[in-house]
Amino acid sequence: MGGVQEEEFCAYHPSWDDPSCAHNLAVWVCGVDDLRLLPYKVSHQLGCNDVRVEVKAVGICGSDVHYVKKLRNSRVAMKEPMVLGHESAGVICEVGSSVTNLKVGDRVALEAGIACGCCTLCKEGRYNLCRDVRFFGSPPTNGSLAKEVVHPASLCHKIPDCLTFEEGAMCEPLSVGVHACRRAKIGPGKRVLILGSGPIGLVVLLVAKAFGATTIYLTDIDEKRLTVAIALGADGTLRVSSDMNDLGDEIVKIQKMVGSVVDVTFDCVGVTKTMSTALKATGSGGKVCLVGMGQDQMILPLTAAAAREVDVLGIFRFGLTKEEIEAGFKTSAVAGDAIKVMFTI
Amino acid sequence: MGGVQEEEFCAYHPSWDDPSCAHNLAVWVCGVDDLRLLPYKVSHQLGCNDVRVEVKAVGICGSDVHYVKKLRNSRVAMKEPMVLGHESAGVICEVGSSVTNLKVGDRVALEAGIACGCCTLCKEGRYNLCRDVRFFGSPPTNGSLAKEVVHPASLCHKIPDCLTFEEGAMCEPLSVGVHACRRAKIGPGKRVLILGSGPIGLVVLLVAKAFGATTIYLTDIDEKRLTVAIALGADGTLRVSSDMNDLGDEIVKIQKMVGSVVDVTFDCVGVTKTMSTALKATGSGGKVCLVGMGQDQMILPLTAAAAREVDVLGIFRFGLTKEEIEAGFKTSAVAGDAIKVMFTI
Amino acid sequence: MGGVQEEEFCAYHPSWDDPSCAHNLAVWVCGVDDLRLLPYKVSHQLGCNDVRVEVKAVGICGSDVHYVKKLRNSRVAMKEPMVLGHESAGVICEVGSSVTNLKVGDRVALEAGIACGCCTLCKEGRYNLCRDVRFFGSPPTNGSLAKEVVHPASLCHKIPDCLTFEEGAMCEPLSVGVHACRRAKIGPGKRVLILGSGPIGLVVLLVAKAFGATTIYLTDIDEKRLTVAIALGADGTLRVSSDMNDLGDEIVKIQKMVGSVVDVTFDCVGVTKTMSTALKATGSGGKVCLVGMGQDQMILPLTAAAAREVDVLGIFRFGLTKEEIEAGFKTSAVAGDAIKVMFTI
Amino acid sequence: MGGVQEEEFCAYHPSWDDPSCAHNLAVWVCGVDDLRLLPYKVSHQLGCNDVRVEVKAVGICGSDVHYVKKLRNSRVAMKEPMVLGHESAGVICEVGSSVTNLKVGDRVALEAGIACGCCTLCKEGRYNLCRDVRFFGSPPTNGSLAKEVVHPASLCHKIPDCLTFEEGAMCEPLSVGVHACRRAKIGPGKRVLILGSGPIGLVVLLVAKAFGATTIYLTDIDEKRLTVAIALGADGTLRVSSDMNDLGDEIVKIQKMVGSVVDVTFDCVGVTKTMSTALKATGSGGKVCLVGMGQDQMILPLTAAAAREVDVLGIFRFGLTKEEIEAGFKTSAVAGDAIKVMFTI
Repeated sequence: MGGVQEEEFCAYHPSWDDPSCAHNLAVWVCGVDDLRLLPYKVSHQLGCNDVRVEVKAVGICGSDVHYVKKLRNSRVAMKEPMVLGHESAGVICEVGSSVTNLKVGDRVALEAGIACGCCTLCKEGRYNLCRDVRFFGSPPTNGSLAKEVVHPASLCHKIPDCLTFEEGAMCEPLSVGVHACRRAKIGPGKRVLILGSGPIGLVVLLVAKAFGATTIYLTDIDEKRLTVAIALGADGTLRVSSDMNDLGDEIVKIQKMVGSVVDVTFDCVGVTKTMSTALKATGSGGKVCLVGMGQDQMILPLTAAAAREVDVLGIFRFGLTKEEIEAGFKTSAVAGDAIKVMFTI
Repeated sequence: MGGVQEEEFCAYHPSWDDPSCAHNLAVWVCGVDDLRLLPYKVSHQLGCNDVRVEVKAVGICGSDVHYVKKLRNSRVAMKEPMVLGHESAGVICEVGSSVTNLKVGDRVALEAGIACGCCTLCKEGRYNLCRDVRFFGSPPTNGSLAKEVVHPASLCHKIPDCLTFEEGAMCEPLSVGVHACRRAKIGPGKRVLILGSGPIGLVVLLVAKAFGATTIYLTDIDEKRLTVAIALGADGTLRVSSDMNDLGDEIVKIQKMVGSVVDVTFDCVGVTKTMSTALKATGSGGKVCLVGMGQDQMILPLTAAAAREVDVLGIFRFGLTKEEIEAGFKTSAVAGDAIKVMFTI
Repeated sequence: MGGVQEEEFCAYHPSWDDPSCAHNLAVWVCGVDDLRLLPYKVSHQLGCNDVRVEVKAVGICGSDVHYVKKLRNSRVAMKEPMVLGHESAGVICEVGSSVTNLKVGDRVALEAGIACGCCTLCKEGRYNLCRDVRFFGSPPTNGSLAKEVVHPASLCHKIPDCLTFEEGAMCEPLSVGVHACRRAKIGPGKRVLILGSGPIGLVVLLVAKAFGATTIYLTDIDEKRLTVAIALGADGTLRVSSDMNDLGDEIVKIQKMVGSVVDVTFDCVGVTKTMSTALKATGSGGKVCLVGMGQDQMILPLTAAAAREVDVLGIFRFGLTKEEIEAGFKTSAVAGDAIKVMFTI
Repeated sequence: MGGVQEEEFCAYHPSWDDPSCAHNLAVWVCGVDDLRLLPYKVSHQLGCNDVRVEVKAVGICGSDVHYVKKLRNSRVAMKEPMVLGHESAGVICEVGSSVTNLKVGDRVALEAGIACGCCTLCKEGRYNLCRDVRFFGSPPTNGSLAKEVVHPASLCHKIPDCLTFEEGAMCEPLSVGVHACRRAKIGPGKRVLILGSGPIGLVVLLVAKAFGATTIYLTDIDEKRLTVAIALGADGTLRVSSDMNDLGDEIVKIQKMVGSVVDVTFDCVGVTKTMSTALKATGSGGKVCLVGMGQDQMILPLTAAAAREVDVLGIFRFGLTKEEIEAGFKTSAVAGDAIKVMFTI
């Protein structure tokens, strides 16, 4: 599952030579490690339910980095140049004829996926699982790192004056934590364990606190990340190894740290060792929420957990292979202590 | 994880020489393949909330066979002789002073597990997960294959006149199916796939039909079992292999057979191949219910399933290792086409 | 809340003189008791997600009758002529350019309401509550009693070959029962009481049976309706009066008839007496589902019911005042024993 | 429904003359406005699952006042003298032979109701609805305002060192708020309206904040109470009248104050006007939680609310009639600004 081979990839896009969109510069992935600022054509005439948004801030996450480094992200490969970015906020600069909930000048965060609205999953309110979703910056759909984009009004959410555009752009990664905490029914009385203290683990920490979780503990292989977790309000942390042989000892240490039954464990890494930890550390009748996606196949002690009715809940987000996660870690290593890179336009 | 060693097992029980209970003969497991009919002492004075039941029918399930053959069942080992049996029905012959819901002569099915009633799980209504449950015929608690037993009135459920005692004794295995279908929220509109057409798979079939499932399909490695499934009302069946290499083909055949999305898959086998089938065959937003317990560790494509929010729900029942399942199959092979062995007293 | 006054109502519609739609005759409500067969203009060019349906069967329900008799239904009044009908089935005769789930010749039932798809309720999967829904045959939206209609493909549900078009048209009233039984979580083990044995009460009976309810009892003031309920599978019925003074006695009779606790009561009438019966007859922790809408204001013993955590669940359908229900009853009285009137085209 | 008549009430209790319990003084209700400190006999020998608690703090709530003033509370009347109190905390001074979760010296809050543990509602985890519950200080069960009481260990909940005994005793009224917020599924994103800013309304405010509710608004007829609500963190308040004619105006003011849809309304008063307000002010698909119990019968616009699927959820607590609430208000008026009276022992 290496990078896309040269011959499959057509390194040209007609937008670039279209004089009508010269004003709308965007950040294009044109090849491996080849980012360029080039024109991007969006609809000149708005659909009746669409709005035009002047983009003000775009965050960069691991999946964006994968497209830049390898022209693919897990099973999804680019066939042609693509505008990057899906964590975005901006200002409404034009509204379609039927739009009533927004007006020019409104500051909004942009929901990144446009679902079909017609399939059973969409009708049931689980539209994040729609098979025909078009997602900003996921091939073949262009992203939002542009001067302006056109988007359905119903997916542009007003942000209060007290939030910056950068904070607005963080709504997208935040939504992963909100969705995970909703699925796991976090609330007062719940004791939470979070495996992995990277950006997603920290987002889940913040959201679980907002949902009223009674206690929240985190683990990681990196002491520095654990320090951040404590600073953000974790009740305790444990440094763990990546060695399966330490599993038994670490379960004992986790139980001692928590001092009670774990009701919900969020695995924000998603490899054999973390899921094994999750299945063993979670109390009878509890929930394991698989948020991280570090490995396609895992060797799991599922039977004993199932016999205690420890349920495993999935969370939709972009799939990352182990290799890709390692690549991601290297990238963030290069970035030093930065937890998030953000473009302000 | 072989059988219990001779020196650990004390092959004697004081009940046997107690003249006060000579009338209450029971079937004791006294050693490997050593069943004997001997006296069993139950309380002469009833607790105020207890009843005395004259046992009329006791079914035998796989876990009973394991105690007879190996003096253990998965992680639970016998330390001394034990009365066998937990699927039972009978007639009330005496009631405690505070019992109001039952009277002498009532025909009842016996709920096999006595939970503590005090822990959080008991208070939340998930008392099947109580850590301190005492379960008929599971060491160190004696079973119900006796002339009479003493049991809490609240765990004796009246059976209607139209049911035989043998059918009443089937309530216990039936409850596994009911619990699984409740957890998986089976109802009209749900398309169901059941992997494994042994006794539990067939029970799930019958219960899922009663819950109104729209279509129900079953698989098995044994054609004869599939014939039974069709006779019991399955909408279709597929014979599968135990070879992982056939997995891809079988998924295609299942999708063709079902002709639509699978909403809920019950894995009534519980090995790497069946769980892999379940995770791949179930539609986005669907549920996999792990009922069978054929393997402690499984190698699973969990990540891709989690990304489609296919949840894995556990169901509490006795744990069986692969070896034990194979032993169980051999036993049932010896028994010919019998699906259930039942004692009538 | 009498009929619409003459001066508010413009008894003309431009469709009628449009030669381009002369072939598409429809049943128009042109005034009080004034139904006419006149041309109805639907889009000549399909939207990309729309289909054209040749209508084959349309059922008539109480709300249709109200428009014919009074040009209004509860709070919703006609301002101009309107095509009648919302319970419909037909054959696809043309598909829009993006439609993939349907093809010409498919037999379909038509979902009557087109929700906005953008509001929070739509996104949560509760699109029946959308404030901007456009509903067949509810002003200002024309109905489906026409030779052909244009409708979103996602709202046309294929019906199996074994169903007639008349049965397909019954999907709409059936959906009220399905929605009510889903909200009330009907399933095996539930003991159900249905107050009112008119068309909706009988639909709820049929659906509750399909959902696996253990026992279902019905009441009505009309003995003939109760005979139909028994014929459709009710476990028992009770003839009640419309006199509040009989309430206490009737509760006693209901409890004797059911012989156990009522888990869910469906009030398919919706007046003070039936809701009082529902609140008193339903067991602690049970549910009352208010389906009928016979009275705007009711005098209710809600406090005692709330203290037993008997919840009251609403079901969206057209609102009918008491007067309108009485009118409806007279209409059905005129129609003799007919339970449903159906047009076949 | 006046006070108990003299002749029904036997103003003597054998405990008073029992020398073996002379040390255990308790507060007895001996007649109308007749409180006395007299001996109270509790078990000298503990049941195996019981503990003896040295009581340290007992709160007094409205229902206690009713017993003192009228020897009854709604439908429940005293037949003989009774020890008062049900909001209590203390220190374990002796444990039964089977108790493992508590030891002498543990500081605990006492759960006030002992359910049967055997009925269907108990088994389902809804034991607060148990018909056979025995509740501290509710006839014929004595209360906890004594030097020591005997109680099941499973109903004594350890309190952390950072809580005083007075705060521990507040767990009981707090549990009403917790239960209400759980039933109403309060969490981030929910906009809450609380009608009535007395003790229960304020408890619901505090709990809803802990559950992460986005905004919380309160109403009351008393400006002083609203000031307390603001001090405790309410996002806004509205002074309302008790005049039904103001209903329409107040709904408009509430909608303006909230500035958005109300998701959940808690009616902590429970009279026709507040429930009418709740049903009209709550958005489509929302919930009304009936916590207060001010009126047996209410005249309600239930139909229109049900058609918008606004559900009404009940919360079990003691029933209070309007008269009794008014008496309660007078009592608290006499008490000046006190929101809670607490005995420290």
